[in-house]
Amino acid sequence: MIGIKEIASYIPKKRNSNSDLKDKFDMDDLFITDKIGIKSVSVKNLDQDTSDLCVEAFRNLEKKVSIEKSKIECLFVVTQNPDYNIPHTSAIVHGKLDMPENCACFDISLGCSGYVYGLSVIKSFMIQNEMKQGLLFTADPYSKVINKEDKNTSILFGDGASVSFIGNNPKLEIGSFTFGTIGKEFENLICKDNILAMNGRAIFNFAAKKIPKDIPELLQRNNLSKDDIDLFIFHQGSKYIVDTITKRLKLDKSKVPFKVEEYGNTISSSIPILLESEIDNPKLKKIVVSGFGVGLSWSSSVLFK
Amino acid sequence: MIGIKEIASYIPKKRNSNSDLKDKFDMDDLFITDKIGIKSVSVKNLDQDTSDLCVEAFRNLEKKVSIEKSKIECLFVVTQNPDYNIPHTSAIVHGKLDMPENCACFDISLGCSGYVYGLSVIKSFMIQNEMKQGLLFTADPYSKVINKEDKNTSILFGDGASVSFIGNNPKLEIGSFTFGTIGKEFENLICKDNILAMNGRAIFNFAAKKIPKDIPELLQRNNLSKDDIDLFIFHQGSKYIVDTITKRLKLDKSKVPFKVEEYGNTISSSIPILLESEIDNPKLKKIVVSGFGVGLSWSSSVLFK
Repeated sequence: MIGIKEIASYIPKKRNSNSDLKDKFDMDDLFITDKIGIKSVSVKNLDQDTSDLCVEAFRNLEKKVSIEKSKIECLFVVTQNPDYNIPHTSAIVHGKLDMPENCACFDISLGCSGYVYGLSVIKSFMIQNEMKQGLLFTADPYSKVINKEDKNTSILFGDGASVSFIGNNPKLEIGSFTFGTIGKEFENLICKDNILAMNGRAIFNFAAKKIPKDIPELLQRNNLSKDDIDLFIFHQGSKYIVDTITKRLKLDKSKVPFKVEEYGNTISSSIPILLESEIDNPKLKKIVVSGFGVGLSWSSSVLFK
Repeated sequence: MIGIKEIASYIPKKRNSNSDLKDKFDMDDLFITDKIGIKSVSVKNLDQDTSDLCVEAFRNLEKKVSIEKSKIECLFVVTQNPDYNIPHTSAIVHGKLDMPENCACFDISLGCSGYVYGLSVIKSFMIQNEMKQGLLFTADPYSKVINKEDKNTSILFGDGASVSFIGNNPKLEIGSFTFGTIGKEFENLICKDNILAMNGRAIFNFAAKKIPKDIPELLQRNNLSKDDIDLFIFHQGSKYIVDTITKRLKLDKSKVPFKVEEYGNTISSSIPILLESEIDNPKLKKIVVSGFGVGLSWSSSVLFK
């Protein structure tokens, strides 16, 4: 059974503090701690590119588990901030990590739903192509496209990367998925002329409406009920959206972590970074993961021990 | 069995003639007809974006086959020239075509190997997620990033798009695949600061070396011999590369089409555009498809009737 054998991540040490921006953006402490729930956002160095963040995540993976590179048969990167548009960043990561020639590489262009989609893509691809070991990276450094004068985006998004080692005898098996797209609303989160723009209210309303409908469908698809789930990892967009989904689904708050106070919303890396911190918790047998955002797009799945 | 039910494409009518550039680039007729084999390249209108080319391809698909949009469960776009980097172009196409909300969408970032990879991605994804109907688009309008003063690129690449309707009871079933990446050589075909640059000799040498080794491996993986194959569709990079691979593999030239004289190398669309013209040929029972380029990357498969 193909699943997640291990996860590692990389969050740049440099932080921009939101409390320094209180006057500039007319925010009070309550807004920072209770509404967005993000005290500071992580920022990569200017000389680090997306592929470098992936390499750092891989170095951290190697500290946890021995990787025989010659056995890595596929390597995918989920990103919408590639090093270049041509070629794909996965090829650059492949080169930097000295991966073997018979390794399949491509990038998956998705935002905050990208890790969950990516799990389905890599699992499917590996099963159908009879592959045994693969790597799924996420790295979407929004600092490359954020206008620091834009409150909507500059106080929320942090840089980060993750890598999931996928193969047999996993720590987490992967269940059935749900997927969704509302392409007509794509303009609500868009990067034009290298500057990100977000209609925060529209994105919030989308997630607050769609995800509470999606989770019951996901559970049904996996023959599970809400009470069977030990942990719900929602995309860490903001404290307010996670709290709102929790309320609308009437979930036990202790089962719904929000843990990005110190580094912010890392887009497709938000779920795997949180998952990494829980993967060895023996009490957690069934974990829901649910990503939503750019596209507009969403995807959810259940991970099993 | 999931396979290719139908293919349609769109090639913009506007052409730039290479014979007009003979003096500028110091080319003779023989170079144009025998070496590159491309007399003119197709160019999209400035007001057409990548998603628009996909929509045109879909309109042409609808002329061939009735599509019930409510039954389309996934829609992927292979591109490295998206409308925007954020969001994915597949979401924009989803919106423009008014596709249903439960449709999974993402872009696959790959160049000339992208259609073959894309076939594996969509087939795998659909089987594993028990989907019945999906759409695989290719659209990579290099006119967005070509420097008209650069002979290496401006005489080769044309704009185009394709859509493959994927599902059960297909016209072409999809066999086993080979995949490869040489990430260390990624700089040989790269887009920096929105300008494409290609080391033509390096790309040629890569393809001329790797593909003649890859095809025997592909045939073995599919339990076939060279003589079992009725048609070899290689990525239409240039006449010279297709001729060279044909010679090195000692293939019957009549089995190896090169048909892009009038519109050029359309990157990930080159294989599906050619495949469209042969899909209803009753004499062709087994077709090899092989894409190679950006990454550097390659992938091959066998399609069966």
